[in-house]
Amino acid sequence: MKSFFYPASIAVFGVSDSPSNLGRIIVQNLDRFGFKGSVYPVGTGKGFVCGRKILASIEAAENVPDLAVLLVPAQSVPDILDLCGTRGIRHVIIESGGFSELDEGKRPLEAKIRTIAEKWAMKIVGPNCFGVINLEAGVVVPFFILNPAYMGKGSVSLVSQSGGIYYDTCMLASFEGVGLNKLISVGNKLMMNETDCLEYLVKDEGTRTIGLYLESFSEGRRLMEIAGKTTKPIVCLKANRTRVGQEIARFHTAALAGDDEVADGALKQSGIHRVQNFREMMDTFKIFSLPVLKGRKLALITRSGGHGVLAADAVHRHGFTLAPLSDGFFDLVKSRKINVIRMTNPVDVGDVYNLESYGEIIEKALQEKEVDGVAFVVTFSSETDGAAVKKAIGRAAELAPHYGKPIALCAVTNRDQWSQLKETTGFPLFTDVDDALKALARSLEHHENTTKRVFEKKETIPESPVQIIRSECLSGMVDPDRAFTLLKQYKVPVAHYSIVKTIDQAITAAQRIGYPVAVKTASPEVLHKTENGGVVLNVPDSLALKKTLQEMAPGPHFIQKMAPAGVEVIVGGKRDHEFGPVVLFGLGGIFTEVFKDTAIRVAPIDETIAAEMVEGIKGSTILKGFRGQKHRDIKSLTEVLVRVSALLADHPEITNLDINPLIVLEEGSGCLAVDVKIGVAG
Amino acid sequence: MKSFFYPASIAVFGVSDSPSNLGRIIVQNLDRFGFKGSVYPVGTGKGFVCGRKILASIEAAENVPDLAVLLVPAQSVPDILDLCGTRGIRHVIIESGGFSELDEGKRPLEAKIRTIAEKWAMKIVGPNCFGVINLEAGVVVPFFILNPAYMGKGSVSLVSQSGGIYYDTCMLASFEGVGLNKLISVGNKLMMNETDCLEYLVKDEGTRTIGLYLESFSEGRRLMEIAGKTTKPIVCLKANRTRVGQEIARFHTAALAGDDEVADGALKQSGIHRVQNFREMMDTFKIFSLPVLKGRKLALITRSGGHGVLAADAVHRHGFTLAPLSDGFFDLVKSRKINVIRMTNPVDVGDVYNLESYGEIIEKALQEKEVDGVAFVVTFSSETDGAAVKKAIGRAAELAPHYGKPIALCAVTNRDQWSQLKETTGFPLFTDVDDALKALARSLEHHENTTKRVFEKKETIPESPVQIIRSECLSGMVDPDRAFTLLKQYKVPVAHYSIVKTIDQAITAAQRIGYPVAVKTASPEVLHKTENGGVVLNVPDSLALKKTLQEMAPGPHFIQKMAPAGVEVIVGGKRDHEFGPVVLFGLGGIFTEVFKDTAIRVAPIDETIAAEMVEGIKGSTILKGFRGQKHRDIKSLTEVLVRVSALLADHPEITNLDINPLIVLEEGSGCLAVDVKIGVAG
Repeated sequence: MKSFFYPASIAVFGVSDSPSNLGRIIVQNLDRFGFKGSVYPVGTGKGFVCGRKILASIEAAENVPDLAVLLVPAQSVPDILDLCGTRGIRHVIIESGGFSELDEGKRPLEAKIRTIAEKWAMKIVGPNCFGVINLEAGVVVPFFILNPAYMGKGSVSLVSQSGGIYYDTCMLASFEGVGLNKLISVGNKLMMNETDCLEYLVKDEGTRTIGLYLESFSEGRRLMEIAGKTTKPIVCLKANRTRVGQEIARFHTAALAGDDEVADGALKQSGIHRVQNFREMMDTFKIFSLPVLKGRKLALITRSGGHGVLAADAVHRHGFTLAPLSDGFFDLVKSRKINVIRMTNPVDVGDVYNLESYGEIIEKALQEKEVDGVAFVVTFSSETDGAAVKKAIGRAAELAPHYGKPIALCAVTNRDQWSQLKETTGFPLFTDVDDALKALARSLEHHENTTKRVFEKKETIPESPVQIIRSECLSGMVDPDRAFTLLKQYKVPVAHYSIVKTIDQAITAAQRIGYPVAVKTASPEVLHKTENGGVVLNVPDSLALKKTLQEMAPGPHFIQKMAPAGVEVIVGGKRDHEFGPVVLFGLGGIFTEVFKDTAIRVAPIDETIAAEMVEGIKGSTILKGFRGQKHRDIKSLTEVLVRVSALLADHPEITNLDINPLIVLEEGSGCLAVDVKIGVAG
Repeated sequence: MKSFFYPASIAVFGVSDSPSNLGRIIVQNLDRFGFKGSVYPVGTGKGFVCGRKILASIEAAENVPDLAVLLVPAQSVPDILDLCGTRGIRHVIIESGGFSELDEGKRPLEAKIRTIAEKWAMKIVGPNCFGVINLEAGVVVPFFILNPAYMGKGSVSLVSQSGGIYYDTCMLASFEGVGLNKLISVGNKLMMNETDCLEYLVKDEGTRTIGLYLESFSEGRRLMEIAGKTTKPIVCLKANRTRVGQEIARFHTAALAGDDEVADGALKQSGIHRVQNFREMMDTFKIFSLPVLKGRKLALITRSGGHGVLAADAVHRHGFTLAPLSDGFFDLVKSRKINVIRMTNPVDVGDVYNLESYGEIIEKALQEKEVDGVAFVVTFSSETDGAAVKKAIGRAAELAPHYGKPIALCAVTNRDQWSQLKETTGFPLFTDVDDALKALARSLEHHENTTKRVFEKKETIPESPVQIIRSECLSGMVDPDRAFTLLKQYKVPVAHYSIVKTIDQAITAAQRIGYPVAVKTASPEVLHKTENGGVVLNVPDSLALKKTLQEMAPGPHFIQKMAPAGVEVIVGGKRDHEFGPVVLFGLGGIFTEVFKDTAIRVAPIDETIAAEMVEGIKGSTILKGFRGQKHRDIKSLTEVLVRVSALLADHPEITNLDINPLIVLEEGSGCLAVDVKIGVAG
């Protein structure tokens, strides 16, 4: 990967001296950003670009370039690629579009490219992309015009599946006080995908924060593993949320765990910060340009009461608290103010007569032991105020790293002053304090999320031999008896049951199990048993049992011990096309179906993650002695989650699984799986 | 109020010729914004400001000013006010601070001011405010420097309880393409509050959209009535959300209906758009500068696939759909493009070779019958592209009103081009398409919300004479029997009960009522009966009843008919200090307590609002045949809500009310109030 970001020399294919030629722009960008190596424009063979002769062929280049950038018609890519291979080039960026992104019929063309690349052991970025930018080495190969004056160098790097978002980032980052380091546009991800790029960037010295814009995950699990091992903040804008699943939701879990919900769980599990839109991504980049927040206590310093109120609202909304401030702090503010001072946080510095004091007030706040971070909100219009605010921002830029505490700076002013302010300060500025504190909450979350546990399988299931069950069920649904047996093998407690074919068998079984019993159809084809009259609960005795069976549809039946009262939950699983086996947890019935109050993780999980899942749903209260009821056996529940996750990980043929309900009994009494459905790949 | 916005002449108090004098700035602002009337600076009596002699006293003014603006020390305000009165001035803005906002000890000073004002029949804005701006008449009296070049005239007016937010709006609006009309800073609201201002602005011709920044409601119900009668969009940023209620939550409703939840319900009820932060307020102003959206079908036009994906995500997130586009539309795009075209919405115009075509593509989309609005997302860096985009924006500004459809324009570019773009176009621009569509959703909501029904009491309760019940219960809690009786008077169905003092009475009562019965303590002091062993359900016969009563604490008991199975809901009420009586609805238990899934409205309400409340909670599914269960009697439930709201409106002495649970039976079978608690003011 390094040769893409630090090539010693670059060949650009598709260059002419026509003013509308886009290849020319690449050569110009390299010059503008001070790329030190050789640049070979290849194209028409006529004329010059940036003082360099345009070559007719790569064979004419004096040395073998480290990197080739192709911006030529799609159909000519294979031949040029082969020539590159012959010449010894091993790293190629194909920026040309016109492949599978527009027309599925171009897949064979892409396959051909891959074959040629493999023949030459060549690495390829693209096609259909803007290539790379490395501001540390002046490597800037997109074919749109870039200006070094608008691209501040910093520590944020970006991997983008969309050229548009890559473009936006180039345009806005500097304006927003976000310094960039490396950017890569992965296009159609033919050979290099986002995970390859991420792997490089987590090791890259210049990169401290990584942004991902993705529309799909090529190697979801590998991405999680890499993300789980780094302490660098990773910020992901995952778009394409609304793709409609093709699968018919025969399983509750499948309906609840759509692509987007799975992505949410997977990103959370690996400590990746998911943002909803591009603005939020930029806000998050800003915050991670500052020291990480290490606690919840903030000092709010504002120039108006209204901003203080809005800031205090944001403090509560985003889970912070107002730091207590010392008398010493207030003494300083008092000495700089005209009016009476309220000894409160938010601190109103609206009538501080010497605006030069802002810097010292911020510093004093940072020195307070009880202060973890500062939010400073300022509005101004005059030139004089502007100069003072600029000075304060300059001071903040020094103070934040010195004290190791973030300063969220929110400024509003006239449009001329504002543009000036944004241009002259490298420090990230916010407009709205609510947005700023939302981003700051991610900083704290990052600090607190020290134990990322991706696929840590703590518990082994020794007595559960992995068995391929695919062959046993041609219908795609595992026989209910087999499904319960599988659960039992994984030590998931199951309500005692018997399968019976006749009324006599039923009565014998019920006597052994003990009344009251539940009677259920044992046919795997009846999907929603309850709605279809396939379930009768609380059958009290043999007479009632006989009557019940006479009234039900014929066929084998479950006679099952009625489970004691408890909290009904759903534990489910499915095989996701991007992340593999995932496990789902939620409370039963309306809680999951109406409130979508579920937690999803990628399997296998350990008990820590399982406990996080249980804690992660809003309704977890109901398991913890809600309204004077007894606490439920959460320990047993987390064990079930761990074991089901192991079962899913061990059995790749399982596509879907619903334990619904699992009854969680009182603390110390465990759980009971009352119903289970398992689907397998046909 | 008109004299504040259209005064013929203005006196400014507190002016000197010192460079640091703030009163000078007011005079300068009036000149800069071309105020045509006379301006009398009053202050030191020495020197000149803006070519006007500074008077020593208002008596020296040649005419009686329509309006006086005071920026003098707080303690000198009463004397100056009295002089103003003597001189015949009847409208005064007190901008000075140093009153109750800083020090509760200044209340007497404020009272004194009020007395003087009443003596002279004087109207006062402030104190502690920035006064008014009316760009239509050049009336600009804040004491911070304003520049007409940065204040575009338009149709958005603002009422602000905070100077800071008023200041921010002045700074940012023009930069954001939002033209302003009138602004008023209400400060401490001593005599003129936000509702007075709103009343004026809904009638004001120049105002089409009204913004409210509020930290409290002075006359909540009057505000709702005024808002309910206008079709102008009102956008409210209500801060101070986190004030901790002092009331001990003896009532579920009181705990669930905090100040902020009540404000939410009240604003919704009167069709006011509530925004979360200042950025969202500005976004909403932008959207209401465009034609109102009249349907959910959007055409998305973007320059990159990634933006198309993000835009489509936003379409789904904010409740829109992708408009089907005609062949004619695609034919046009095709004729302007280099590459293969996908006949899909979002439309990718990334390789449209002639950027001049953007305007015609937007117009073609607006002409489509199935298109209700357009979102256009564009990123560019070159000067050439910039010129084309600017032209497209100019075109959009004409097209939107012509076709009566909104165009949400999202642009990103280099910082120089961006500032330029924002400065040269009066058209509102967004950066992020997700933010733009969120705002657009409010536009549609505004269009659809044609039937605002504030306090429409359709149903009369003829048999329910209003009775003052305060005197009957010194403890603050209404006796349970009296509470049930009150419900019955308002035709709220109540589970049949009897109050008994002895076991013999109990057995007789139960026989009459019919077993099984519930036994409950009838003492109003036991608050959480269930948790305190004060309730025993399903008592099957007289033997069990006797045993039950022997085990329970002594005292009078309710013997109540066990209600049939149904959905348990809570119907509650409280007297809010800002909005008066409010009614609350939610499902019982965890639904309200964990998910806060409740609806609140200000009483009285009619059946339409009651139905909205029921529909408004997520859990309403459970009342509508969830999982094959029978539909519940929603009609009867809404009647109960209407009647309880009437009860609350009729009885101002009631501070709190919980009907918990109300059992909603099957369709046609009504509801049953099983338990009720009513608290009254002592």
